[in-house]
Amino acid sequence: MKDICVLLTVTGIALAPMTVDTQAPQTHRFVPTVFYTTYSFAHPAALRIRPGDRVVTKTIDAAGVDWDSKNVSSGGNPETGPFYVEGAEPGDMLTVTFEKIETNRATGYSSSLLAPYTIDPAAINSRIDREPKRMIWNIDKIKGIVSLDSPDITPSHLEVPIKPMLGCVGVAPARKEAITATTPGAFGGNMDYAGLNAGVTVMLPVNEPGALLFIGDGHARMGEGEAVGTGVETSMDVEFTVGLVKKRAVGWPRLENADHIMVLGSARPLIEAFQHATTEMHRWLMADYGFSERGASTFMGQALEYEIANVVDPNFTVVAKVRKALIRANRP
Amino acid sequence: MKDICVLLTVTGIALAPMTVDTQAPQTHRFVPTVFYTTYSFAHPAALRIRPGDRVVTKTIDAAGVDWDSKNVSSGGNPETGPFYVEGAEPGDMLTVTFEKIETNRATGYSSSLLAPYTIDPAAINSRIDREPKRMIWNIDKIKGIVSLDSPDITPSHLEVPIKPMLGCVGVAPARKEAITATTPGAFGGNMDYAGLNAGVTVMLPVNEPGALLFIGDGHARMGEGEAVGTGVETSMDVEFTVGLVKKRAVGWPRLENADHIMVLGSARPLIEAFQHATTEMHRWLMADYGFSERGASTFMGQALEYEIANVVDPNFTVVAKVRKALIRANRP
Amino acid sequence: MKDICVLLTVTGIALAPMTVDTQAPQTHRFVPTVFYTTYSFAHPAALRIRPGDRVVTKTIDAAGVDWDSKNVSSGGNPETGPFYVEGAEPGDMLTVTFEKIETNRATGYSSSLLAPYTIDPAAINSRIDREPKRMIWNIDKIKGIVSLDSPDITPSHLEVPIKPMLGCVGVAPARKEAITATTPGAFGGNMDYAGLNAGVTVMLPVNEPGALLFIGDGHARMGEGEAVGTGVETSMDVEFTVGLVKKRAVGWPRLENADHIMVLGSARPLIEAFQHATTEMHRWLMADYGFSERGASTFMGQALEYEIANVVDPNFTVVAKVRKALIRANRP
Amino acid sequence: MKDICVLLTVTGIALAPMTVDTQAPQTHRFVPTVFYTTYSFAHPAALRIRPGDRVVTKTIDAAGVDWDSKNVSSGGNPETGPFYVEGAEPGDMLTVTFEKIETNRATGYSSSLLAPYTIDPAAINSRIDREPKRMIWNIDKIKGIVSLDSPDITPSHLEVPIKPMLGCVGVAPARKEAITATTPGAFGGNMDYAGLNAGVTVMLPVNEPGALLFIGDGHARMGEGEAVGTGVETSMDVEFTVGLVKKRAVGWPRLENADHIMVLGSARPLIEAFQHATTEMHRWLMADYGFSERGASTFMGQALEYEIANVVDPNFTVVAKVRKALIRANRP
Repeated sequence: MKDICVLLTVTGIALAPMTVDTQAPQTHRFVPTVFYTTYSFAHPAALRIRPGDRVVTKTIDAAGVDWDSKNVSSGGNPETGPFYVEGAEPGDMLTVTFEKIETNRATGYSSSLLAPYTIDPAAINSRIDREPKRMIWNIDKIKGIVSLDSPDITPSHLEVPIKPMLGCVGVAPARKEAITATTPGAFGGNMDYAGLNAGVTVMLPVNEPGALLFIGDGHARMGEGEAVGTGVETSMDVEFTVGLVKKRAVGWPRLENADHIMVLGSARPLIEAFQHATTEMHRWLMADYGFSERGASTFMGQALEYEIANVVDPNFTVVAKVRKALIRANRP
Repeated sequence: MKDICVLLTVTGIALAPMTVDTQAPQTHRFVPTVFYTTYSFAHPAALRIRPGDRVVTKTIDAAGVDWDSKNVSSGGNPETGPFYVEGAEPGDMLTVTFEKIETNRATGYSSSLLAPYTIDPAAINSRIDREPKRMIWNIDKIKGIVSLDSPDITPSHLEVPIKPMLGCVGVAPARKEAITATTPGAFGGNMDYAGLNAGVTVMLPVNEPGALLFIGDGHARMGEGEAVGTGVETSMDVEFTVGLVKKRAVGWPRLENADHIMVLGSARPLIEAFQHATTEMHRWLMADYGFSERGASTFMGQALEYEIANVVDPNFTVVAKVRKALIRANRP
Repeated sequence: MKDICVLLTVTGIALAPMTVDTQAPQTHRFVPTVFYTTYSFAHPAALRIRPGDRVVTKTIDAAGVDWDSKNVSSGGNPETGPFYVEGAEPGDMLTVTFEKIETNRATGYSSSLLAPYTIDPAAINSRIDREPKRMIWNIDKIKGIVSLDSPDITPSHLEVPIKPMLGCVGVAPARKEAITATTPGAFGGNMDYAGLNAGVTVMLPVNEPGALLFIGDGHARMGEGEAVGTGVETSMDVEFTVGLVKKRAVGWPRLENADHIMVLGSARPLIEAFQHATTEMHRWLMADYGFSERGASTFMGQALEYEIANVVDPNFTVVAKVRKALIRANRP
Repeated sequence: MKDICVLLTVTGIALAPMTVDTQAPQTHRFVPTVFYTTYSFAHPAALRIRPGDRVVTKTIDAAGVDWDSKNVSSGGNPETGPFYVEGAEPGDMLTVTFEKIETNRATGYSSSLLAPYTIDPAAINSRIDREPKRMIWNIDKIKGIVSLDSPDITPSHLEVPIKPMLGCVGVAPARKEAITATTPGAFGGNMDYAGLNAGVTVMLPVNEPGALLFIGDGHARMGEGEAVGTGVETSMDVEFTVGLVKKRAVGWPRLENADHIMVLGSARPLIEAFQHATTEMHRWLMADYGFSERGASTFMGQALEYEIANVVDPNFTVVAKVRKALIRANRP
């Protein structure tokens, strides 16, 4: 038996009584064959796991194409899962620590037009080239780059560093809603955050028994904001370990990596995504790090960082971040 | 005579015929005594300078207090300047390279409440502590930190690294508008970008003869988004060199530092700030770096980075960024 | 057999081949006992009806209280239905003509605080009276007013004219989503439009076989915008007749009454609700009234009217309206 | 000497000690020859008038063309004025009652494309017809219609009722700003409200000595929202009477006509315009009509009406309205 929740050791701050499991953690190998395009309580569990267990699995790309380039699902971010976490009940917090998020085929695709709402309406009206095309990128894990050759564009060769991520990590939504896999929200979902890489722990609210964890929508690379509406969409090998914190309210998805704690707010308009992320960070600093209401505000005013994850999904996503070194330097 | 425009040598990409000045660049020492709280064509030039000239000057804090802690102006970001740049005409681009932005007194102040529009309205309704207080920070340039001691908050001691910046760099606006020094726009102004530090070149449109450059609103430190409505507000020693690119349209302020080229869009709502920045970056990549319309889009989709500069001023500011290393790797 | 679709006779403009039913229309009396708080394809049909049929039914209030003041459901706009319309298939348009929307008990309730997002954040911060209270209104159908007596407010007596409406009219959403009954969208739902009174025909897209029509959330009266987050919430007697137009795309709910044709766009931010409504009206004028692309724009520019239905639900709703007299005067 | 402020007699509610002028009101006939395209304290008074005085004057169209079809100014809503009101000081409220707003030539012009931000971005991308054209309308005051004949559109003949209005009524802005005549704000300006017709009283804050009243931008007709970016732009004969209420704060322009009191909030995004209007109406009901904080909220929730004035100017404008009959029925 071991400390099952990785995030505790990262910040070194005791969070709460954790689920202690008398059974040794297991590693599950799960190759999905059925995929879902809604986050919903209504889907049957694909696999039942326990807090502390590790899952070794795969995701297909946003259009339903797998690691063998076979089209195995209709599109719209078909999800692997749902994983039923034993003991998870509404009001708990699920933690998902990603040990591995790695591309597993040689190509990915992207769009080639800046998406609606990313550019000025007048720029849409005046552009010459209006039909979106699907661009095919080569994924070179050895060199660590994704690259593209196309006679339709200048430059005809493009290349950028690889940085594998998952666009989608979510649980069954609250209030028995079933939400398309293209949408992010308080339940996680299609947040499309370029920083959701291996090494990250994602913390999500539990709305339904078993939480029902879904993952999908891998990108070999994605620019911040996802301004063309896609990353370099591809299939992935994924390994993650789940944990559970009982009776811990979490308003919006929280992330932790080596350097930062983060909150991902999702909404339209963009400012509301910002507001959700900032409000939840304020609550988090008060609840877990000992800040008073005004202390948290004063600190945040000079310490916050932000990222814009996406402005193309049905809800936009903003990330509020605080450097863990600053929290350590400002421990009450 | 020398290459007067620093940015040219940074990217190593020839931009345009530059103003060549037969007179040797001069260094001007200018200690301001009159300050303006609007950006306007109507203010008389404080100093006339030539492209290539360097200015060694000072700014007072946002409330009008100077380096000797004397209140020398009413508040609202009182500006140093305007500097009249000889030869600058509407349609040109002014460049301002900051060699030095450094605090010059021992204290700064901040607010202590998360500002309107930064948190959920429901969080405003439920907060207990609603009256803003002015917090005084100590500025320690040797240790490189700003710190605060207050019995009103927990923790009662706060400290964060120093990172001096100017909130305001602007020129006289277009269309004979006079705009308060608290507002950012296409003319620059109160963009409140935490990345506007020494080492940055700012590129601004010229709307009036002489451009009329204003600077002010120094912060020893500011969290991204400026969520409490202030940084650590203080006075500054500033050194900058101006350049001029003739007949070069620039829709929104552009920045360049060692690592990035950037565009700062300012508007409400936040998404329009994002749109302005993204649209201008698209134009910039096409105009100066050889990308085609679709090539720029496809590249940006996987290369863009964003920062949220402020969400508290009359217009909000979003920064679209592209890493210069990626531009060099994707030269047509 | 008769012309089953009321809207055709109102504008006098032939729309499309209609479903002709060889069976005489029926009137169904349906008293609901089960209520749903999501719009979803997954709920079993409460009643199967045919195009041309009339339904005489009832709705309970938003909190689940019925015409006998009994609490018969949990809250969140519990819906009557779903009504399965025989022959309705995805791609068709369902029409629902309301002959009667009438209060059926003596009281309703409202909130007493202006809701988040309806007032300036600074006004939220400075208000003295922050706890919402439930206010009970008397409904006097004879006098035609709703009135309130409360010692907690000045004036202690309030009265406004009765104007019964349904907040919710919706069908099963597209893409197998299940959406809470508090949310409006392209499928209709909780649009909270004060103009959805007896005499109105609502036109909705069919996303699932049978369409699955839900109604609920009656208000004896509601101010535009629903600024306190409620109308005068109460139970209703409702009578409606359904019709079906085969293979007719409808992007957003359309309404028609004696004077206007209307489109209800729902989204956040508010401008997107406006955009959806305006765009769909443009399409409608081109598809059904003979306008060219530019002709519709030019006409709309001088003819449009708008209402703000709600700014308090998960999506806000804006109504774009054109007077039918103007359409008749501008027939190609 | 007479009661100089028309609004007092309309609602029958005593507002405040009014300026009583010992001199008889005068009627000034003023034909403008100089026009301004900014609202600014810096423009010299065109005419000095006293509270109670009437002005008989003219406005030219938005492009600078007058009643004789002569181009007498550059465009951007060139304004008649400024009128300096004797005795007006910062903190006072200026009232402007329009007795006449009437077209004075045979034609007006409009745009022909739905403007940016009025339609979905995807609809912009897919439209075939993208170049704006200037459409010329005939103004027939006898028949009471404006009409258009154009072979470029279907229908080739359009006609709608005449409804003359002023797009611009404003004073010199606060804080020494100079703001383009295309922009609305707290100072009034280019609100583009189709309900600003003869019979309306406009109430504006006084920011500068003499208030400095500007008027302009007449429309023979305008659809709500001004979705094509123009009304039917034309020149006007205007008659108005000014009044002054000393030491009366007004946050946003207030209007009163025979049926309604109204507040016009202007901002981007649209929701902030809504928030400003609603917040100011709340204050107004408390300050002048005897409502308590919660009483005003409860009443407004069931009594408010809204209009969307424009979504095309640099700030958008929303009108919050309350029927005067409802105020009279709910007098404390």
